[in-house]
Amino acid sequence: MSQIYDRVALIGLGLIASSLYWAIKRDGLAGEVTGYARSAETRETAREIGLCDRICESAVEAVEGADLVILCVPVGAMDQVAREIAPALQAGATVTDVGSVKRAVIDAVGPHIPEGVHFVPSHPLAGTEHSGPRSGFAELFEQRWFLLVPVEGTDGDAVDRLESLWQAIGSKTVRMEADHHDLVLAVTSHTPHLIAYTMVGVADDLSRVTDSEVINYSAAGFRDFTRIAASDPTMWRDVFLNNKDATLEILGRFTEELFALQRAIRTEDGDMLHDYFTRTRAIRRGIIEAGQDTDAPDFGRTKT
Amino acid sequence: MSQIYDRVALIGLGLIASSLYWAIKRDGLAGEVTGYARSAETRETAREIGLCDRICESAVEAVEGADLVILCVPVGAMDQVAREIAPALQAGATVTDVGSVKRAVIDAVGPHIPEGVHFVPSHPLAGTEHSGPRSGFAELFEQRWFLLVPVEGTDGDAVDRLESLWQAIGSKTVRMEADHHDLVLAVTSHTPHLIAYTMVGVADDLSRVTDSEVINYSAAGFRDFTRIAASDPTMWRDVFLNNKDATLEILGRFTEELFALQRAIRTEDGDMLHDYFTRTRAIRRGIIEAGQDTDAPDFGRTKT
Repeated sequence: MSQIYDRVALIGLGLIASSLYWAIKRDGLAGEVTGYARSAETRETAREIGLCDRICESAVEAVEGADLVILCVPVGAMDQVAREIAPALQAGATVTDVGSVKRAVIDAVGPHIPEGVHFVPSHPLAGTEHSGPRSGFAELFEQRWFLLVPVEGTDGDAVDRLESLWQAIGSKTVRMEADHHDLVLAVTSHTPHLIAYTMVGVADDLSRVTDSEVINYSAAGFRDFTRIAASDPTMWRDVFLNNKDATLEILGRFTEELFALQRAIRTEDGDMLHDYFTRTRAIRRGIIEAGQDTDAPDFGRTKT
Repeated sequence: MSQIYDRVALIGLGLIASSLYWAIKRDGLAGEVTGYARSAETRETAREIGLCDRICESAVEAVEGADLVILCVPVGAMDQVAREIAPALQAGATVTDVGSVKRAVIDAVGPHIPEGVHFVPSHPLAGTEHSGPRSGFAELFEQRWFLLVPVEGTDGDAVDRLESLWQAIGSKTVRMEADHHDLVLAVTSHTPHLIAYTMVGVADDLSRVTDSEVINYSAAGFRDFTRIAASDPTMWRDVFLNNKDATLEILGRFTEELFALQRAIRTEDGDMLHDYFTRTRAIRRGIIEAGQDTDAPDFGRTKT
């Protein structure tokens, strides 16, 4: 494929940034890719594994001359990073981010963006439970959604160009309004993560059920929760702090519904339970039909 | 491998029974295997796909002459089935079951078992989100736990012999007391399933977040919940009705913990969230070290 940007700067070098680097280089989508991470250890690791054409000692150095800057830091660090790089941004450049929350990032980053620089927030629905510069791989974005959340008045060409980059690394793209994005993600991602963290925490607390039993017999359902609950703690702390309202709203609905099912168990209302479990089965069929998962039976382990 | 039982009867012909059949035949572990299902349609399907050496028209016919009877019906149907087959059980035979709850099954089946017949409850921690006679496969039990829950005074040889069958089909076995079993499973399986059903139900209810959005963007965490919530509704209704106390107890702990995290989000207590998410990450490492899952990154789809 042909080059889409001359110089791309990756700020933050975790799972998403490293995957972006490998995908961009594989497909020759950028001339040079620079990288910066706050931690010296991360920068050292990046140099060691050949991550980025050039690892810089400051965010400012990394963004100098870049026509695309991708902020890959936790949502809570966006404000500080944007403030830092703002004076070094080149006119006509595009700044994007890959944060899981969009309204908070727009509020944090938007005000720092100088006149003549395009800010196009985005969010890849892709990830694994691993984190750090060694966890990336070029195929991460293939067939996954990359949401674009342009703010009003953004230059159309800048959005189109960024969209073509996300498509070139294999993603499907769609444009969405920020508040709607945050609500949809509260349902499909943020609340499920919080629930998984909670269930794993409960299991950890129960002294009568020893750790080794919980672990040995985890294949019966719990295992999937532990994978979700192994995700990066800093990233997820920031997600909940920055998508507070939508998460609390969905949590409220969840609790209400859980209490209804709990009551059905207590009162032994088998019909209510059966109807409920039949209805949820249909959603699964929708996901398989939409190509977001396969119908292959998953029997409690990854085939390697 | 050599034959362990002369004639095995499978009562109920769903995922577990059909997988047992294919595993037993593959390894030559029984002479003849008979099968019975209440639904004529299921018996027809079984005959069509060659499931069982002989499909019988009644449970009584299926168990006649069997030295091992395996009850593979939902927990709520155990009492009726045990009552039906009791007069036809052969002296010296062993009756086992594969129910996900053990105290209720012991209470339901135990009283019907005639003198001279051994009742050895068991429970394979294996399954998929699919159900019915076509969903079975011989490898289902490989490397999975098969729990044996013998009641006091059971003949030791009968337990050993059954254990050797479960091991011969590839399972790891362990013996456990019934109430402890039900509590452990409430943590590792029953409560996680209820929570997954609830979350999927909430997503289904939200009219502002359309079905297609929930489905399209499910890879971000929700997808794993939908797989769990696609499990057999009858089986799961019966699990909750029959492991009511332990499930309600763990649900109570879950809610308490969820409220603490919800409060941390509301009060923006980032340290509490970060500490919590760091602690849960350790459990995941335990599961990988115990060989119950691999460390391979799961990035939102099954590789086919």
